[in-house]
Amino acid sequence: MKIAIDAMGGDYAPTEVIKGVELMRNENKNASFILFGDKDQITPLVQNMDNISIVHTTEEISMGEEPVKAIKTKKNSSLVKAAEAVKNGEADALFSAGNTGALLAASIFIIGRIKGITRPGLLTLMPSVSGPHDYWVFMDVGANAEPKAEHIYQYAILGNFYAKNVLHYTNPRVALLNIGTEEDKGDTTLKDAYALINENKDNDNINFIGNIESRDYLQGVSDVVVTGGLAGNFALKATEGTALTILRFMKQNIKNGSILVKLGALFLKPVFKLLANKLDYTKAGGAVIMGVKAPVVKAHGSSKALTIKNSLNQLISINDSKIIAQITDFSAENLL
Amino acid sequence: MKIAIDAMGGDYAPTEVIKGVELMRNENKNASFILFGDKDQITPLVQNMDNISIVHTTEEISMGEEPVKAIKTKKNSSLVKAAEAVKNGEADALFSAGNTGALLAASIFIIGRIKGITRPGLLTLMPSVSGPHDYWVFMDVGANAEPKAEHIYQYAILGNFYAKNVLHYTNPRVALLNIGTEEDKGDTTLKDAYALINENKDNDNINFIGNIESRDYLQGVSDVVVTGGLAGNFALKATEGTALTILRFMKQNIKNGSILVKLGALFLKPVFKLLANKLDYTKAGGAVIMGVKAPVVKAHGSSKALTIKNSLNQLISINDSKIIAQITDFSAENLL
Repeated sequence: MKIAIDAMGGDYAPTEVIKGVELMRNENKNASFILFGDKDQITPLVQNMDNISIVHTTEEISMGEEPVKAIKTKKNSSLVKAAEAVKNGEADALFSAGNTGALLAASIFIIGRIKGITRPGLLTLMPSVSGPHDYWVFMDVGANAEPKAEHIYQYAILGNFYAKNVLHYTNPRVALLNIGTEEDKGDTTLKDAYALINENKDNDNINFIGNIESRDYLQGVSDVVVTGGLAGNFALKATEGTALTILRFMKQNIKNGSILVKLGALFLKPVFKLLANKLDYTKAGGAVIMGVKAPVVKAHGSSKALTIKNSLNQLISINDSKIIAQITDFSAENLL
Repeated sequence: MKIAIDAMGGDYAPTEVIKGVELMRNENKNASFILFGDKDQITPLVQNMDNISIVHTTEEISMGEEPVKAIKTKKNSSLVKAAEAVKNGEADALFSAGNTGALLAASIFIIGRIKGITRPGLLTLMPSVSGPHDYWVFMDVGANAEPKAEHIYQYAILGNFYAKNVLHYTNPRVALLNIGTEEDKGDTTLKDAYALINENKDNDNINFIGNIESRDYLQGVSDVVVTGGLAGNFALKATEGTALTILRFMKQNIKNGSILVKLGALFLKPVFKLLANKLDYTKAGGAVIMGVKAPVVKAHGSSKALTIKNSLNQLISINDSKIIAQITDFSAENLL
């Protein structure tokens, strides 16, 4: 497979992006990479050009830019050119660590939606502290701030496909993230989404377990959790922020603590390591734009080489799973 | 002041509710308490009847009941009778550890909204790990799942009043919880709420600092955070769940760890204590129903005596602050 890389996107681009690509290339000889970006900057950074090619571009889309305007006006940007390569069949998949909104816009307006999927969404993998699997699928985490019930229903279908085909989970438990666990909870959108998922679950092969709350989702109570993009984004960032705040608070207080406290931290290192390992979901990859005609993955803006490599690995798994073709077939039969 | 107590609400009612009331009574001789509930159960549990009276009721509203239906059909419940005592001027404030939705319904339909406040909201205090204060005000955390921009604008006014008058914060920083920090972020409701707060901030005496994300709110970046009830509830519960999950994970792994790990945990105890203390927001009280004609506080269903006492203390502070009269005056002049 061929992956189109937005080499200029991300806080450490192009250096760390290229390092990540080379790490992935060294591990998987079946993948090749097209780096879109400033040739003069990129060329000296590549150690070995095996399975790597460069397409020179003259513009960049920065983090703060208005997404739709950026992809419409910066026709020569690394992101737009990379997305066009996917659209034209010169590449199979798209990767960026840059502006999420711009990647989403490029995916929808250049690569295009799968027919029947009304609003593509952003899928991410979250850690489970207990339960049968290390990760669960969370969608939508911010692509669609004004979801209709139908969109959330489609996220349940897309998330279910991802859990089954990419993660190889058997009979994944699909839940709706809501304000309470009872069936009648939430706003009109979530109530209607509940009804849509529930009515169609047999036809859609969805193991729907009903509503769950964000208080419980790290406990591995479900394998796929769907909700609207605004509330999903609030929950995701609250989880990230709380974990970071706690770990940072402990670190700071250990640093300022007595000799005994420092010794205690040293003895407890195995537990801290286990915890950090459990919570580190960057190992599983980045955020996936689901519902468009090709695999697209977004790594966090602050990603370094190893995280970039993990996201590329995820992109290869998505491609190998043939999930896009399966969603396209399902959608043509069921969602038109 | 006189506080009407729903003595039958909560997982450990009436025992722990009564214990909490007595703890508060022993500390504050100016407050008196009317316990609404089953006299036969309550009487033997009260150690000392000073400043305590009992009103016998024959029904209870349980946790799972549909709120509006419950308060309409269970006219002899402890909650409905307690709310009616506040409405009739026999008590100044209302307390319950029972069904949140039913307390909200009783507050709105029995005690009544302050004129001009379209939709009362649920306010809670959240911990700050750094910043000038130990707590910040979060609203709405679940009363109003389908908020309009105007409601969120009013939450900014109510939250600002609370921070100034009850917590005595000087010039509190008021922020909108959103999907990103830029002004144009969010759905239509949040964009319109941003505009409303921003346009009226001088007249409303609000120190509006714009949007913040849930990733940052534990860092003490603002003193009042407002948003819609559904997304606010998701963020609140994600924060609670993540903190609990991390602490439980560490506890479990220390328990199953080597002697060294256990020794490490012992040495680190001061840091764990500091952390638990920082995160324990039950010290600050319960959730406040803001926008109704009397102070109403809801303690968590699982509250024991000390948490009940803290919530009653909060109720007394709210009453002493005269915030209800101030909101009523402000609302009459500005929000009609």
